[in-house]
Amino acid sequence: MSNYILPTEVEYLRLRTREFIRSVVLPAEPGPGERLMPENRKRLQRAAKEAGVFAPHVPKTFGGQGLAIQYWSAIFQEAGYSPIGPSVLNCMAPDEGNMHMLNLVASDDQKQRYLRPLAEGVARSCFAMTEPHPGAGSDPAALLTAARKVDGGWTIDGHKRFTSGADGATFCIVMASTGATEDSPAGATMFLVDMDNPGVLLGEHIHTIDRAIEGGHPHVYFKKCFVRDDSVLGEPGLGFKYAQVRLGPARLTHCMRWLGLARRALDIALDRAERRELFGSPLKDLGMAQEMIAQSVIDIETSDAIITKTGFLLATEPKAGSAMSSVAKVHCSEAIFRVIDRSIQICGGDGVSDGLPLASYINEVRPFRIYDGANETHKWAISRRASARRRAAVASGEPFLADVDQVKDPWPASGLEIQPHGHSEAAGAY
Amino acid sequence: MSNYILPTEVEYLRLRTREFIRSVVLPAEPGPGERLMPENRKRLQRAAKEAGVFAPHVPKTFGGQGLAIQYWSAIFQEAGYSPIGPSVLNCMAPDEGNMHMLNLVASDDQKQRYLRPLAEGVARSCFAMTEPHPGAGSDPAALLTAARKVDGGWTIDGHKRFTSGADGATFCIVMASTGATEDSPAGATMFLVDMDNPGVLLGEHIHTIDRAIEGGHPHVYFKKCFVRDDSVLGEPGLGFKYAQVRLGPARLTHCMRWLGLARRALDIALDRAERRELFGSPLKDLGMAQEMIAQSVIDIETSDAIITKTGFLLATEPKAGSAMSSVAKVHCSEAIFRVIDRSIQICGGDGVSDGLPLASYINEVRPFRIYDGANETHKWAISRRASARRRAAVASGEPFLADVDQVKDPWPASGLEIQPHGHSEAAGAY
Amino acid sequence: MSNYILPTEVEYLRLRTREFIRSVVLPAEPGPGERLMPENRKRLQRAAKEAGVFAPHVPKTFGGQGLAIQYWSAIFQEAGYSPIGPSVLNCMAPDEGNMHMLNLVASDDQKQRYLRPLAEGVARSCFAMTEPHPGAGSDPAALLTAARKVDGGWTIDGHKRFTSGADGATFCIVMASTGATEDSPAGATMFLVDMDNPGVLLGEHIHTIDRAIEGGHPHVYFKKCFVRDDSVLGEPGLGFKYAQVRLGPARLTHCMRWLGLARRALDIALDRAERRELFGSPLKDLGMAQEMIAQSVIDIETSDAIITKTGFLLATEPKAGSAMSSVAKVHCSEAIFRVIDRSIQICGGDGVSDGLPLASYINEVRPFRIYDGANETHKWAISRRASARRRAAVASGEPFLADVDQVKDPWPASGLEIQPHGHSEAAGAY
Amino acid sequence: MSNYILPTEVEYLRLRTREFIRSVVLPAEPGPGERLMPENRKRLQRAAKEAGVFAPHVPKTFGGQGLAIQYWSAIFQEAGYSPIGPSVLNCMAPDEGNMHMLNLVASDDQKQRYLRPLAEGVARSCFAMTEPHPGAGSDPAALLTAARKVDGGWTIDGHKRFTSGADGATFCIVMASTGATEDSPAGATMFLVDMDNPGVLLGEHIHTIDRAIEGGHPHVYFKKCFVRDDSVLGEPGLGFKYAQVRLGPARLTHCMRWLGLARRALDIALDRAERRELFGSPLKDLGMAQEMIAQSVIDIETSDAIITKTGFLLATEPKAGSAMSSVAKVHCSEAIFRVIDRSIQICGGDGVSDGLPLASYINEVRPFRIYDGANETHKWAISRRASARRRAAVASGEPFLADVDQVKDPWPASGLEIQPHGHSEAAGAY
Repeated sequence: MSNYILPTEVEYLRLRTREFIRSVVLPAEPGPGERLMPENRKRLQRAAKEAGVFAPHVPKTFGGQGLAIQYWSAIFQEAGYSPIGPSVLNCMAPDEGNMHMLNLVASDDQKQRYLRPLAEGVARSCFAMTEPHPGAGSDPAALLTAARKVDGGWTIDGHKRFTSGADGATFCIVMASTGATEDSPAGATMFLVDMDNPGVLLGEHIHTIDRAIEGGHPHVYFKKCFVRDDSVLGEPGLGFKYAQVRLGPARLTHCMRWLGLARRALDIALDRAERRELFGSPLKDLGMAQEMIAQSVIDIETSDAIITKTGFLLATEPKAGSAMSSVAKVHCSEAIFRVIDRSIQICGGDGVSDGLPLASYINEVRPFRIYDGANETHKWAISRRASARRRAAVASGEPFLADVDQVKDPWPASGLEIQPHGHSEAAGAY
Repeated sequence: MSNYILPTEVEYLRLRTREFIRSVVLPAEPGPGERLMPENRKRLQRAAKEAGVFAPHVPKTFGGQGLAIQYWSAIFQEAGYSPIGPSVLNCMAPDEGNMHMLNLVASDDQKQRYLRPLAEGVARSCFAMTEPHPGAGSDPAALLTAARKVDGGWTIDGHKRFTSGADGATFCIVMASTGATEDSPAGATMFLVDMDNPGVLLGEHIHTIDRAIEGGHPHVYFKKCFVRDDSVLGEPGLGFKYAQVRLGPARLTHCMRWLGLARRALDIALDRAERRELFGSPLKDLGMAQEMIAQSVIDIETSDAIITKTGFLLATEPKAGSAMSSVAKVHCSEAIFRVIDRSIQICGGDGVSDGLPLASYINEVRPFRIYDGANETHKWAISRRASARRRAAVASGEPFLADVDQVKDPWPASGLEIQPHGHSEAAGAY
Repeated sequence: MSNYILPTEVEYLRLRTREFIRSVVLPAEPGPGERLMPENRKRLQRAAKEAGVFAPHVPKTFGGQGLAIQYWSAIFQEAGYSPIGPSVLNCMAPDEGNMHMLNLVASDDQKQRYLRPLAEGVARSCFAMTEPHPGAGSDPAALLTAARKVDGGWTIDGHKRFTSGADGATFCIVMASTGATEDSPAGATMFLVDMDNPGVLLGEHIHTIDRAIEGGHPHVYFKKCFVRDDSVLGEPGLGFKYAQVRLGPARLTHCMRWLGLARRALDIALDRAERRELFGSPLKDLGMAQEMIAQSVIDIETSDAIITKTGFLLATEPKAGSAMSSVAKVHCSEAIFRVIDRSIQICGGDGVSDGLPLASYINEVRPFRIYDGANETHKWAISRRASARRRAAVASGEPFLADVDQVKDPWPASGLEIQPHGHSEAAGAY
Repeated sequence: MSNYILPTEVEYLRLRTREFIRSVVLPAEPGPGERLMPENRKRLQRAAKEAGVFAPHVPKTFGGQGLAIQYWSAIFQEAGYSPIGPSVLNCMAPDEGNMHMLNLVASDDQKQRYLRPLAEGVARSCFAMTEPHPGAGSDPAALLTAARKVDGGWTIDGHKRFTSGADGATFCIVMASTGATEDSPAGATMFLVDMDNPGVLLGEHIHTIDRAIEGGHPHVYFKKCFVRDDSVLGEPGLGFKYAQVRLGPARLTHCMRWLGLARRALDIALDRAERRELFGSPLKDLGMAQEMIAQSVIDIETSDAIITKTGFLLATEPKAGSAMSSVAKVHCSEAIFRVIDRSIQICGGDGVSDGLPLASYINEVRPFRIYDGANETHKWAISRRASARRRAAVASGEPFLADVDQVKDPWPASGLEIQPHGHSEAAGAY
């Protein structure tokens, strides 16, 4: 997991994290079907603080390691080597994305009230954006949850679903549509809402195959939920702009964490291949196993490389970085899935039993091909951006490349009414 | 290449064909960059007649072997084992498809005049349907080539492209739009046109990477091209119906012939893997080569199986068979391409040089993923048919399977204006 | 699911089965996380008997429908459309394979005692072959479980694992190594052992991700387990021969059942795509969804075709059929997995939650890429068979196809000590 | 093609190169079936010098642009956007790799005599390492070409094949085995040999499907070929060490150049998709085309990212960089092939005809999956390195991850002679 651009202090943090995960976290992982107990999480988080590896992405003033975004990958991959690692290091979704956004957008007071306990691991949070079908995507008009300006604050009404982490969270960042006011445009606004607000009701959980996010994926209902004016995060009406600040990096940190888990899965398979024999040879020397191992290494290294590229772009050209995060998300989510699937195959019957944790790993990463925008949606966006970029290039003078030689009328003086045409893509029914 | 449903006489024909191809045709194959000379073709066709393997799909009354369509595959695969085999056996496109259609649609006189010489190998033919972009697909309105009724016959004007086999052909089957008459509806009509008709002009060739079809893929122009009334094939206005008679089977016979070539490519790779060593082992014992070989066997056997299935359907339920031919076309064209591509890989540097014929083979089969309807067009049709069939099944009472539990309003007496909804496919931005 | 070769009475059975599954079995499927209760199984089996669809593969004399093996696929696919269908119809593994083998090998007494209750659904069975690592494959020498001849019978000692269905089974077919006797060679022998024999101990379960097989996958221990002479199945020493009788068809019936489940998964996705919209269009009209649907149709149809081909071969040339069953197993297990995986993707968040059953389906079929011989093992066998067949063909006179032109020494009179060689597969490091 | 780590002056060079390729080189590309005429090459090279874009990788003292290896990719990709671009910019194989090695290894005199004319584009070179089957790989013992020490120099005898660029080259770098001397170990030695040396004979060409390398891939014979002592490149006996210096970067520069061509192919497809319609929509708006476009973007971006990563490693940790170049080679050679193949598919019939250059592009890149070490060989090496790295990690104390729970003997006091074992990868034949 060497990285060609890590400054020395980051490399030290990486090595500390690696050591911590391997010596402290791995032995504390829950068994098959079990979850990390809250008291264990607390104990492990204390140990992480002592080891100087806690909250790598959080500014030092809030108790973290103060890493710049282009260096997160090396550390988050080490954390993700254990399914509970990111939770122990307090860099798990959705808290990590919320911390990132709060740090960039919140007022000083809000940072003290919400970011600090989150960064210290004494509170959890959630992000309430998704709504039931036909759902709210990036179109403000489709956002059915609405906040109305009332005296001294706002009243929120609406129904959110798939609110990851909501069960047990201390507060929620809620996206709601808001009308235009004198000072702000109509649009979406983000609100910081305490979960013990009497206008908030936690609904039923959606039972999915992943387990790594504490607090599940429940429905959350808001009914005449009053919040004060200082609950607005940033400016009213700019909610979608802030969402972009959150979503691009959050997409990429998923890639980082799950890539760490893919490395774990490959290590399990390598250990298996080292000791097991088939037809009298160690598995590791059989070409079909080597094929799978090599493809997994290629998947891991290309994922690592595209994450690095995207991380640097996010740090320097956020808009280009956000676009590239679609490429990274699609590639990594599929590559990581393949790596774990191949590791299962290499481990045979144990790969699909709870003698090894691989089946639980694939349940964690399968949804990532759907969550955070289904891969098909990202591919659609990638294609449209490629077409638009090329169209602009041609418009600005680049040579158009798809002309084929025009067929000339072989009877030029014919007065033949049919016209010669370029070639067709519908080739011959011969 | 055993086939579980071959009657004895068909199996005998298969064995004769196999022996003929291996002992007579293989030694006569042209070298790199060369083409089969006409005199050699004639000589080989005579030998094929003597060996009783000529024109397997043609009725015995016209000099063929009289095979029913469900048995063509076994024989055409043997023929396709050599790139010149189908031409030698006179079962190559476009003649083979034209013979099939003429046999089903033509009048007795037309059969004597056009089918007989074609079946005997003394004439070649072409099928002029494709037009320049925006082209004529299955929409009669898009057919720009038009035939006008005149006294004693018709006058055809238009421009066809990608008219495979036209150079050197004796006659052409032309699809042209025709207006309604007293006896026939407006639509498309097929005409039998002699290529030496003064109203026919052979245009320039489209140079493609395939070489197996004699006569190339030229443009053909029709200008005030007069043909007599007895040149109409079948009934006026039914051209698209006849085209379907031709296209489904023609699509499948391509699969058969190229599958034979894929078997040849695999045999080349197997021979190579038998004799060459790498790291001290014969290639055939190295797992990565075995992986490629096994995948190629699977591609070949599944292609064979889906062709068989489609052939039986074409014989018994032509409409279902035509639909299934889309499935066969997509699967076989991609599977065959993969088989040859893997064989190239197994043969290394020789695979991409003219020391072995594999690079020429892949040039023959790559276009098949585009010709006869691009695979994407077929997949579009396959998907639409699947949706329509399922929609009809649900409409006729089959249980609808995609309901998810409706979320109940947790505050039932609330008067809350938002409505509970079903789940959304846009999962959480957590 | 039309099948081009079904005799009328088989088609009737298929339609009855289809109707039974849809109207009786689907409504009785257990909910998420639940299993089919024994009393429900009994009730549904009674209904199946009344509907005339019970035990399709069992001879009529034992209460089944008496289908020949080449027609099983059409019926088993209909059964597999529900995860509990095969159990209700009593054609689920491992009982189905045991019935098949008992019918072919058992004595009349054994048939009455073991086959009859099994066929009637009043008993369950298991098949104890697999042993702990390094395990017993097809090498008798590796079989550690041993039976010793004693007066009036045999004593079996050993440890079997992954004995699917053992928990709750009435009897077990045990494979044990046996020494040579006067009448029989040394080798493996199959024994019919009652599970309440005091020498049998049911061990712990191996917890795997699949749930469809009742009785789980436990360890079974044999300790001084005495059985009478009439417990030998067939002849002593012929155990591996009988295993082949069982394994080829058993492999194929898995393909059939799971293919039915893949059809179900596609129907779920089609229903979803019909009703949901994205970007203002029904999902079913979006090209990326159509691509997935079409690929799934192709996977299903090619699986169906290769199963049909293999079924006919098993009926007519069992050895060729057994070899082809490796091709079918690899293709179908991967195609079926892809179909369900794509259906999950089309269904988005619901695809990975228990709002839809797709996540449980993929847990049923993922192990099939490993069970019954890992796909890599089958590919290895497929490749070796292809090499052997080709080697034999060349030895018997077929032209060897991988010769490349020999390079001639350009300085023929040179006395140059180096020798000209053929081309190398190691192409240039240029 | 933005790159997140380009210093300003490199970015300027990139933009100059981009402009030069588009405005000067594209219009000068030869037509279908034609090659770049020598006089045109000279004219274009003069223009490249004037534009300040010639020989980007060559030190400024030898007339190049003096780029460090980690920045080559951005420039070589721009060059590769035209198939003749690298030749025009004098950064094409094999000269580019030879320049790189000469710059690192040659004496000052040798640099003046061989590197200078090469760098200035007035001479061409070749690299004679590959030998006929069974061939010489990295095993000195397998190197049949031998050099014998004689008075004042060496005499070389041997036969090289696939000596890319040899026809028309001024000199050749020859790898030959040499015995131990007082000063140097036995091993391989590199020699600089003028091609007009009377002991050199240019043999026949191997006709391959690629055309981009001037001078083809001929055989070269050495017979009593005398060279002076100062023809030894570097030290005797260190030839394989120098070969590593050459091969890692040379592998990566192929990736760079062909990735540029992949970008060209995608642009052609994007232009096509912009203007062509199917079913009444522009191709670019059809989901199946968007799927192909998006996958191509992902292939291009991940290739770019892994090249960048490998380039930095080569600059800082050459051994790790060389190992990573195997990953880059496999991924890029397959990704680039897919991009061009998809572009062909998007362009339909024109994609396989010479109306567009795509078919010629795929002929250039297909061999790259074989040349420079077949991808299978690299995958084998990647797998072995992964196993070795993991084995070392476990040996140094990392937790071994593939233990499964040991099965306990359920009858502990039994004296049962069989032993409980861990689980087996051979799962149940149920």
